[in-house]
Amino acid sequence: MRENVNFQSLSAEVLDEVRSALAMVDDERAEAVIEKLISAHKVFVIGVGRVMIMLQAFVKRLNHLGIEAYYVGEINEPAITQDDVLIVASGSGESVVPVAIGRVATKYHPTIIYIGSNLASTAAGMSNLQLRIPCRTKLNLPDELNSVQPMSSLFEQALLLTLDTLAFMIVEKKKLVLKDLWLKHANLE
Amino acid sequence: MRENVNFQSLSAEVLDEVRSALAMVDDERAEAVIEKLISAHKVFVIGVGRVMIMLQAFVKRLNHLGIEAYYVGEINEPAITQDDVLIVASGSGESVVPVAIGRVATKYHPTIIYIGSNLASTAAGMSNLQLRIPCRTKLNLPDELNSVQPMSSLFEQALLLTLDTLAFMIVEKKKLVLKDLWLKHANLE
Amino acid sequence: MRENVNFQSLSAEVLDEVRSALAMVDDERAEAVIEKLISAHKVFVIGVGRVMIMLQAFVKRLNHLGIEAYYVGEINEPAITQDDVLIVASGSGESVVPVAIGRVATKYHPTIIYIGSNLASTAAGMSNLQLRIPCRTKLNLPDELNSVQPMSSLFEQALLLTLDTLAFMIVEKKKLVLKDLWLKHANLE
Amino acid sequence: MRENVNFQSLSAEVLDEVRSALAMVDDERAEAVIEKLISAHKVFVIGVGRVMIMLQAFVKRLNHLGIEAYYVGEINEPAITQDDVLIVASGSGESVVPVAIGRVATKYHPTIIYIGSNLASTAAGMSNLQLRIPCRTKLNLPDELNSVQPMSSLFEQALLLTLDTLAFMIVEKKKLVLKDLWLKHANLE
Repeated sequence: MRENVNFQSLSAEVLDEVRSALAMVDDERAEAVIEKLISAHKVFVIGVGRVMIMLQAFVKRLNHLGIEAYYVGEINEPAITQDDVLIVASGSGESVVPVAIGRVATKYHPTIIYIGSNLASTAAGMSNLQLRIPCRTKLNLPDELNSVQPMSSLFEQALLLTLDTLAFMIVEKKKLVLKDLWLKHANLE
Repeated sequence: MRENVNFQSLSAEVLDEVRSALAMVDDERAEAVIEKLISAHKVFVIGVGRVMIMLQAFVKRLNHLGIEAYYVGEINEPAITQDDVLIVASGSGESVVPVAIGRVATKYHPTIIYIGSNLASTAAGMSNLQLRIPCRTKLNLPDELNSVQPMSSLFEQALLLTLDTLAFMIVEKKKLVLKDLWLKHANLE
Repeated sequence: MRENVNFQSLSAEVLDEVRSALAMVDDERAEAVIEKLISAHKVFVIGVGRVMIMLQAFVKRLNHLGIEAYYVGEINEPAITQDDVLIVASGSGESVVPVAIGRVATKYHPTIIYIGSNLASTAAGMSNLQLRIPCRTKLNLPDELNSVQPMSSLFEQALLLTLDTLAFMIVEKKKLVLKDLWLKHANLE
Repeated sequence: MRENVNFQSLSAEVLDEVRSALAMVDDERAEAVIEKLISAHKVFVIGVGRVMIMLQAFVKRLNHLGIEAYYVGEINEPAITQDDVLIVASGSGESVVPVAIGRVATKYHPTIIYIGSNLASTAAGMSNLQLRIPCRTKLNLPDELNSVQPMSSLFEQALLLTLDTLAFMIVEKKKLVLKDLWLKHANLE
């Protein structure tokens, strides 16, 4: 039973969980992912629920970095080709829509990157590269990090920080000047 | 009191209203609008509620026609410049967000096109070109077409068909081959 | 070869096509659909691209009419149950995501309504009720209305006007007072 | 000049920044915020760009927790009343749309909560309660946490974790049983 449920004590628990999750992300895999992203003609992302929301934040940032990116279902989504990357994110790797979209995508031969917890999943199986964030999913796999937080919050938080770290790596790698990024940022707001 | 409320009789009433609205759209203004759209570097659109939904359908079609288009607030929305067009659609021309966005946009000097019913409105006042669809709005202006339909349905229906007619004019004008359009259509669906 | 490509002549062609499409919608089927919608606990809709956009406009209107409605993927989407209705709209009835979602939905036993052109499709096959709008789709079925417009524009236009006519029928059936509808309308705009 | 730009070293920098930001969030203010959220009839949120994305993730979670929530602009957004809460999130507190929406909202007298970095801003000025996350914004206020990350990433990350911590506090406070939360979770995915 928790003694304190104030903001500082609970946010410390959240941060500790996120730290544990990020510590298990593999450096070389992350390197491989950003190489694919940098050399892609276009990047597409698919997920569901809060996972899709985190992916949308990544799409927004990639565009700022000069990498053309779209979420599947976006109003101005173009056709995918073999020169593109599709990121399929799903903790369990079994979410219905991402798997269905991944299956359609294979017809056009893009590079598919799976981000999630379950390397034995259908989504992982159709991917060319996998980046594992081993957080508890609905499947409760034995080697996943447990979490005291509601539902799949930990995976979603770790996903945002993983994706933002990838964006940060791209900035460093391409030696982008931070203040120039605003030039590509929406100005109608 | 209506005798029949079956689908065929009510859809005939809806169609008659839409026909009356479209009949009042000015040919030369429409021509001027598509010239601006064709020569624009990028096209942005802003509206609220169901009006924004109709604009999103137009954005999707413009991209198929090879015209780069975005709705304001879209995940991958870029910066607007003086080479771009901003369409502000609002029946009353006084919707808060479109007017606020229009005001921000004027700093970057795009061509602003107002589409709506109220040429005396704030949105019309900040625009370079106006395309009037004179359907009843919340303001109940005296010279607007009345409607038996709920809320602003007539304006929204007339807006979709007006925008789709503009798209059709662009196809004819640019002599686009219809089956080639699918090349730019999303294929992950 | 078209002599005139001005707004009035092209919008007349568009309207004629839409009129032909709506004329083929069955009165009794439409009646059955609105009965399902009125008695539903909640209504969900799924489609892709511009079809989904038209469905979103319908969701917005249904909520104004006091019928709780959501599009699949909406941020605040709740769980579907056997007391609910799922509308699956797809011209061809074979769009990947609508079919995948329809398949998941059958586990929860909602009433599934198919709206589209292809009664022999997978989506139609999993539905309890079908409302046919026989417009040309990617499949080019023999008994579909042809169209001079780009892509599936005609289906999308006919879909919006069909759905708005259904909304209009609900207003008449429930004897809703039009000005009261604004009470449920978003006021932060 | 950074020696290592691998995932582990950069994610550690990101996490350190987020930890510093969260450490500056006031316990009593956070308590006051969740009391408002729990007693609200409905919760609305408004922001722009990636800030809006993080707010949408919060809306999704609040609904799981049994708190009716919407983002402004959502398809099924209802009318706001004096019994509701509006969260206006903006690092600088001067984002055009949030400020415009906040101004409209004041006519209906909801409780307005400002979340951001700038307590001297227009958005903070129209709010009844403020929760400060002092991260660098476009304004570069003197007392804000600086960041090595691109643009306003730190604010957005700290915002997600702050909101998720608030959700976690609500779970504890209302003694919600975590596995019951899935009952309100979308099941069409």
